[in-house]
Amino acid sequence: MPTHFGPATGPRQGPDGRKFANIDTPKNTNISISFLTDAAALKAMLPPCFTLDGEPIVTIFAKYMTEIEWLAGRGYSMLGIRFPAAFNGVKDHVRGSFLSVLWENLTEPILTGREELGFAKIYCELPDPTISPSTWHSTASWLGFKFLDLTVSKLKVSEQPPIKTISSTPDDGTLHFKYIPQTGVWGSADVAYPVLTPATGSNETTIEHWIGDGTIQFHHARWEDMPTQYNIVNTIANLKIKEYHHTSITKSIGSKDLSDQRILS
Amino acid sequence: MPTHFGPATGPRQGPDGRKFANIDTPKNTNISISFLTDAAALKAMLPPCFTLDGEPIVTIFAKYMTEIEWLAGRGYSMLGIRFPAAFNGVKDHVRGSFLSVLWENLTEPILTGREELGFAKIYCELPDPTISPSTWHSTASWLGFKFLDLTVSKLKVSEQPPIKTISSTPDDGTLHFKYIPQTGVWGSADVAYPVLTPATGSNETTIEHWIGDGTIQFHHARWEDMPTQYNIVNTIANLKIKEYHHTSITKSIGSKDLSDQRILS
Amino acid sequence: MPTHFGPATGPRQGPDGRKFANIDTPKNTNISISFLTDAAALKAMLPPCFTLDGEPIVTIFAKYMTEIEWLAGRGYSMLGIRFPAAFNGVKDHVRGSFLSVLWENLTEPILTGREELGFAKIYCELPDPTISPSTWHSTASWLGFKFLDLTVSKLKVSEQPPIKTISSTPDDGTLHFKYIPQTGVWGSADVAYPVLTPATGSNETTIEHWIGDGTIQFHHARWEDMPTQYNIVNTIANLKIKEYHHTSITKSIGSKDLSDQRILS
Amino acid sequence: MPTHFGPATGPRQGPDGRKFANIDTPKNTNISISFLTDAAALKAMLPPCFTLDGEPIVTIFAKYMTEIEWLAGRGYSMLGIRFPAAFNGVKDHVRGSFLSVLWENLTEPILTGREELGFAKIYCELPDPTISPSTWHSTASWLGFKFLDLTVSKLKVSEQPPIKTISSTPDDGTLHFKYIPQTGVWGSADVAYPVLTPATGSNETTIEHWIGDGTIQFHHARWEDMPTQYNIVNTIANLKIKEYHHTSITKSIGSKDLSDQRILS
Repeated sequence: MPTHFGPATGPRQGPDGRKFANIDTPKNTNISISFLTDAAALKAMLPPCFTLDGEPIVTIFAKYMTEIEWLAGRGYSMLGIRFPAAFNGVKDHVRGSFLSVLWENLTEPILTGREELGFAKIYCELPDPTISPSTWHSTASWLGFKFLDLTVSKLKVSEQPPIKTISSTPDDGTLHFKYIPQTGVWGSADVAYPVLTPATGSNETTIEHWIGDGTIQFHHARWEDMPTQYNIVNTIANLKIKEYHHTSITKSIGSKDLSDQRILS
Repeated sequence: MPTHFGPATGPRQGPDGRKFANIDTPKNTNISISFLTDAAALKAMLPPCFTLDGEPIVTIFAKYMTEIEWLAGRGYSMLGIRFPAAFNGVKDHVRGSFLSVLWENLTEPILTGREELGFAKIYCELPDPTISPSTWHSTASWLGFKFLDLTVSKLKVSEQPPIKTISSTPDDGTLHFKYIPQTGVWGSADVAYPVLTPATGSNETTIEHWIGDGTIQFHHARWEDMPTQYNIVNTIANLKIKEYHHTSITKSIGSKDLSDQRILS
Repeated sequence: MPTHFGPATGPRQGPDGRKFANIDTPKNTNISISFLTDAAALKAMLPPCFTLDGEPIVTIFAKYMTEIEWLAGRGYSMLGIRFPAAFNGVKDHVRGSFLSVLWENLTEPILTGREELGFAKIYCELPDPTISPSTWHSTASWLGFKFLDLTVSKLKVSEQPPIKTISSTPDDGTLHFKYIPQTGVWGSADVAYPVLTPATGSNETTIEHWIGDGTIQFHHARWEDMPTQYNIVNTIANLKIKEYHHTSITKSIGSKDLSDQRILS
Repeated sequence: MPTHFGPATGPRQGPDGRKFANIDTPKNTNISISFLTDAAALKAMLPPCFTLDGEPIVTIFAKYMTEIEWLAGRGYSMLGIRFPAAFNGVKDHVRGSFLSVLWENLTEPILTGREELGFAKIYCELPDPTISPSTWHSTASWLGFKFLDLTVSKLKVSEQPPIKTISSTPDDGTLHFKYIPQTGVWGSADVAYPVLTPATGSNETTIEHWIGDGTIQFHHARWEDMPTQYNIVNTIANLKIKEYHHTSITKSIGSKDLSDQRILS
């Protein structure tokens, strides 16, 4: 929507219908911190069609992108929360991670991500990290209310390739649950189905890789502070951090246009 | 989306499921400029289920709101384009205006407006108007590219009640076309139906009313300038302004929560 | 600076050298909260040429302005901290309040205010207050770090005229200390003199007046949070709030251009 | 100012009085476009104590900085205009370039730059450039009014070291004219003296270097568009571009704290 202003352009279609290569761009800076929590808390965040798959390890990741082709060379950023999950349907049996929520700081990819792809994208401010020799510091806020402080300290170059999955299982990709309510019939749905972003097909290549010590602090919000997201932030803030696992920062190049996104059944 | 963080709050539901009264707030400043254009150009902007209904008069309106209850006392702004249209379905026969596009400067109402209500909402920056004794000046831009200059000059107080409709027809409300694409089956739709915002039910009361001389200038954009909206802005910029009609500025109080939005069939 | 691009325009000079009337505009919303603190803490914040004058009552005020003539109808906001002080010089003997710091959310008035007038203006973000029936809430932040929460609750209309001064003394105006360092001779000054904004001469007229219960919370900052202002914010955050005094919110119209600002000697 | 909140921190002083090394940071992206114009137009932009020195070649440069130590790892950007000039005083005889105006997108360095160093810094918005394989595009705007479009196309890696000066003369550094008005005695000055930023002493090292074809478009502004800067922007927009000279983009690391800034006499 709107539907009647000629062909729409976006991440999967440029002017004249051309596709974007996503090979030499975007340029990405990725921060990833994972921690062990309680399985019960994660299960409560899962749509019923999915099951927790393996250890209850949550990964918080932030991605700062520049030179995005479909935005004509602009950038934007995202902050997501994922944990291992599986889908066992009639036809599809996939294991991967469930992306429970993905904040982005630009409306356009939020709209296409939700409606075309089924990503649980919502908005927040994601300023570029502050970077000191000893420490990276990222924050996330909504209309000025800072709900996350994330720091990575004691950075050192890693000679290992970055860890791609959050569990030892085969990683088929990222799981989502697309949900669109029905207008006027409040409580019922127009759309409600599981969706998969296949793990394959991306041109993303890591060019730098550091590891370090990460910490995460989600700040509880009142309805007055975040009247559309306080339930989300508080649920995550309530997750017990039993033990930090892997923390990494990488620089990477490339992406994919996600046109391989597909419904699971 | 996301669906599993407890009850979501938004324009139609506060904490503990309470509704918002929308009586003493929001405080609204409304600018409205209408002009005569070519019927053919408007017909091309209509989804097939609607017909142009009466004179091809386009109304550009901006609404600057503060003290919004569901945002815990914050504000946001919108910019819309509407023209008279009718729907003649199997069951419903309504006349009103078609809201072809509605820009808003906050992601949250864009998301709920699109998914719950079927409004063709998209994002832009809408700074508060600059106000001089002689002239109001509003602009709209996307990531710094200004695509609209709107001015109202020669303001004088009007003793008339504001004009509510844009045609002489009975105004049943505002028409929209809700469209959500199907994931992975590109080109097909999960949702595609006409929707009505009934004209009745709002607590909005006008408390001040001026009329004046309005002018509108939409600025053509290249894909590089507005890679997700250039087609929309250019279509509107191409509308011939044959003659300006009514221009008004009003201050009003109150609203409705739009829970009376319904599918047309 | 810069000096060689033709006549500069600003608060005290428009195009063609014309002055601004400041009668029907700007439109102002004023929040003021005062509290009793320790005299010693305030004395430490005073330049040596001033003395604390009367009870150690600090007033925090926020002013949200729109329709400013010299900004061609735009608005901006300020947040200040004042307390009663006196100057006894060779020639001048004045009593009033010392404006220890004034945050503004726009660079232009900060520059002219500092260099032309000697106001201790610095920058911060000052979003419009959130307004609920029961409570106003204002915040101030610097690049996302929120250093102030200010709330006013239990608002009721006051039939009294607003309190103009913060003490029972005659109010000659607002005291400032203008200081400009000398380039290259670090530690010495090009300019260092006391300045007065006379209490008279403003067209500001109060049109609405409420009183209520105010609270102030300054949040301590680390150097990492506010590398240019943490010392200021922490000094204020350390002020003991012994007892809240007067809290008011007013709407007012009009101003003055401050061309009556003068050096004290 | 303010002066009485303990030791101030800024570009030349951190907590506990420590200095910043400026060796491994900041990370800088520099765009530079120079063109030949009329000597008379440049002479009109020079304070009387300076003379045009050599060919009337103007250089527009933009610098996008990240990881700035004195901002605890944050970044900001600048846009400047310089041309060759000389100062022949009683004591000092220097040749270099005159920095006629320097826009920055953060208030703090504007304040210290003006008051401590005498730079003609003013504020504007400087979003990160949009970067496509073929073209870089930078803009500058003030409260939404875009006054500059700058593009660099046909980029190719250069094996040459970047050109450091804008003329064949020895480059002693950057010339400025520090001017602070006297309060209340409108038209007279508290401070008015020429200042030099020596060319030496910076740790800045170029690590990547491209050349390309540059174009500059300054957009004329009305007082209503830029009520504090229209005279500056229009003066520059009126400069005739007779011929483009050198265009380059570089990535560099390091800086200096400018504590070697000194008064010329």
